[in-house]
This record gives sequence, structure tokens and C-alpha cells, in this order.
Amino acid sequence: MNKPLLQIALDQTSLSGALSVTRSLANEVDVLEAGTILCAAEGAPNVVAALRALYPASIILADLKVADAGSVLAEMVFSRGATWMTVICAAPLATMTSAKTVADAYNGDIQIELYGEWTFSQAEEWLAAGITQAIYHRGRDAQAAGQTWGEADLGKIRKLADMGFAVSATGGLSPADIQLFAGIPVKCFIAGRSLSDAPDPAEEARAFRREIEKYWQS
Amino acid sequence: MNKPLLQIALDQTSLSGALSVTRSLANEVDVLEAGTILCAAEGAPNVVAALRALYPASIILADLKVADAGSVLAEMVFSRGATWMTVICAAPLATMTSAKTVADAYNGDIQIELYGEWTFSQAEEWLAAGITQAIYHRGRDAQAAGQTWGEADLGKIRKLADMGFAVSATGGLSPADIQLFAGIPVKCFIAGRSLSDAPDPAEEARAFRREIEKYWQS
Repeated sequence: MNKPLLQIALDQTSLSGALSVTRSLANEVDVLEAGTILCAAEGAPNVVAALRALYPASIILADLKVADAGSVLAEMVFSRGATWMTVICAAPLATMTSAKTVADAYNGDIQIELYGEWTFSQAEEWLAAGITQAIYHRGRDAQAAGQTWGEADLGKIRKLADMGFAVSATGGLSPADIQLFAGIPVKCFIAGRSLSDAPDPAEEARAFRREIEKYWQS
Repeated sequence: MNKPLLQIALDQTSLSGALSVTRSLANEVDVLEAGTILCAAEGAPNVVAALRALYPASIILADLKVADAGSVLAEMVFSRGATWMTVICAAPLATMTSAKTVADAYNGDIQIELYGEWTFSQAEEWLAAGITQAIYHRGRDAQAAGQTWGEADLGKIRKLADMGFAVSATGGLSPADIQLFAGIPVKCFIAGRSLSDAPDPAEEARAFRREIEKYWQS
């Protein structure tokens, strides 16, 4: 079982704010996520191109949660250096496949962001269409409403992994939560404010790493 | 029954491209939509602020299809002059209500964009949460896959209207399609490329208006 990667979600409302986070964290994580808020604020091509220029070796995810116009939005970010792009689970399959075609042309990939209502029979369709990455997301508004990680979440992640998805997990994760996922082949653990707002963000990233090392030996 | 409004979806990949469209169309339509593609390309605050500066009397919709972080994204666009903002139907109810709270503070409103899987029992929850606008969307990728407006679409729009939603309709609409909606209290007809790519965009907008006048007398 490969060791899970660590991903920082950059959800600042300005590029400069995001860069002040990457300056201390880019060497401590595997994946830099140009978050939805940041892309909405500054424009996705601008954000992705800046991150690619600064961090040529990093995996860069454009978290656009694409619902339509898959090929146009994919071209917009993959042409500027994105590695991955998210599509929302509610998107029509035609949107996902048109985004995937563009991603493939750039040796990139698509991740399906799981929000709200979705079914495992949809997930079978996504797999059949060649889409193999998913993000299991406990939304920030759901977090704010007091929902926490539980066996229901973990069971769904395990089932998606068993189906063949590379599953990333996000939503209010702290280092102490990592042990909950032991035994599940998680692709990436994604953290945002718990990393960027930590007193020492780099040390907090290393705390995530130490937990990952404890529970996954590859 | 109020006459449906006419909305131009600005889905250009640059602000300048969008402004070349609004220059000929802004006086012919009721609603200027800062489209998802345009907002992703140029940043939503930038696009909304430019449209508000140029067209102080227009309804301006920020089509962000918000899936999470409702209040942050709502603040980002309503503070720059947006009238409406879209949230995606797959968003958690907490996201919708947090966006709605910000919208209300600016005398704005939220529209739920209906994509992929959604149910009328969800729609009841949205109404109960005070959200009364919905966009029935035949996606551009679905269009490209050859799907057309049919009785199934029209029946759902009618049912949503009967429930109490103000429903906008979009997806490959041409003036010749308007008659299909006769008798349904449509809030807005939304057109994008069929307007902007017409040989004479302003005349095409007037062709939409003439069809609307034929079938809705208020």
C-alpha cells in the first residue's frame, strides 16, 4: 500500500496570501491545491501558472469543481501547468469525459469531488469511463454544522478504494485524525487551514507525515 | 404571469472578450451573467466589479456554481455588486443557507443550478430553507452529446414552478425554442453563444423578446 501523499489546500482570497503559505509549506507537502476560493478570487490560469513557475516539481491541483464546459476549463488549467483538476460529482458524464480527454493530452488527470448526493452506481459509471480518482469531502460548511469523521465516511472511502478508485480525503483533518484511516489505501490527505493557520505550518506538516509513517509502510 | 426576462451568459475566456459582447447586448437583455468560464479565467471579483461599473442598472449574476464555502464566495461577489449568485444542487444545505444569508445582507439572491442527480424532495428542502430560485440547465456537454429539450425537461420546470420556485431555463436555447415553454412562468431565458455568436447579436436578442411577447402577456 503506497504511503498517502500530503496536500495543502490553498483557499486564501488572494494570490499573495496563498504564496505566503506556500513559502513555508511547499517543501513539506506533495500536492499544492489551487483552491476553489483562490481560483475564484484571482482567476485559475493566473494561480496555476504562478504555482507552476515557483514549484516546477510539485503536483498542482486546480480545484475548480467543474460542473459543465469540461474541455474549456480543463484546457484553461492544464495548459498552464496543472497536474490534476477536480470535477463535481453532479456533473454530467459527458463533462467528466471531455475534461478527462484534455487531461490525458497533458498527461494530467481528473478527480471527482464527492459532495452531497451521489451513488455507488454512478461511481461504477465513472470508473467505466476511465476516471479513477475521487476526493471524499467532508465540506467546510458541513464541518461548521458540527459533523465529524465517522465510520460512515470511512466505510465509503474503503468501498471506493475497493472498487479501484484512488481516494483522497479532506475536511477538517488534523494529524490526530490520520489514525482513523489506517488500513485504507488513501491517495492524499488534504489539509487547509489546519496547516496554514498552525503556529508552525512546516512543523504541522511534519506531524501529518509522522502519523502517515506510523500507519502506512510501503 | 410575469414576462420572462432575457439573460446573456458571458462565457468568454477573457474580460475583454466578454465586454465586446456586452457592448452590443447590454441594452437588449435584463441579466448579465458572469459565466463560470469567465469567472474562472479572470477572477470573479474582477469580472463582477467591471460589469457593475459599466452597467449600474443591470441584474448581474455570478455563476460560480458554489459547492462549498458559501459565505466566503458570496461575500466575494455580492460585495462587488452581484445581484444573484448560483450554487450547485449537489452543495450541502449548509452551503446554500450560508450563501443565502450573505446574499440577503446585500439584498441579493441565490439561485440553485440543477445539474445531474437531484430530487424533488431535495427541492422541498431548498424551499423550506428559503431558497426560491432555480436554474434548469441542459448542460453544454449534454447538448453536445445530442440531447434536446423535451417534455421531460418541460415537465420538471413546470413542477418546480408549481412548487413555488422562480425557474430560469438554459441550454442551447434559440428564439424558436421559446414557444415550447408557453404557459410556464419562466423567470429568465438564458442564452449564451446563440446570442453572442449571432450575426447581429442585438437583433437576435430582439427575436427572443418578440417570441416572449407572443406567449406571455402580463
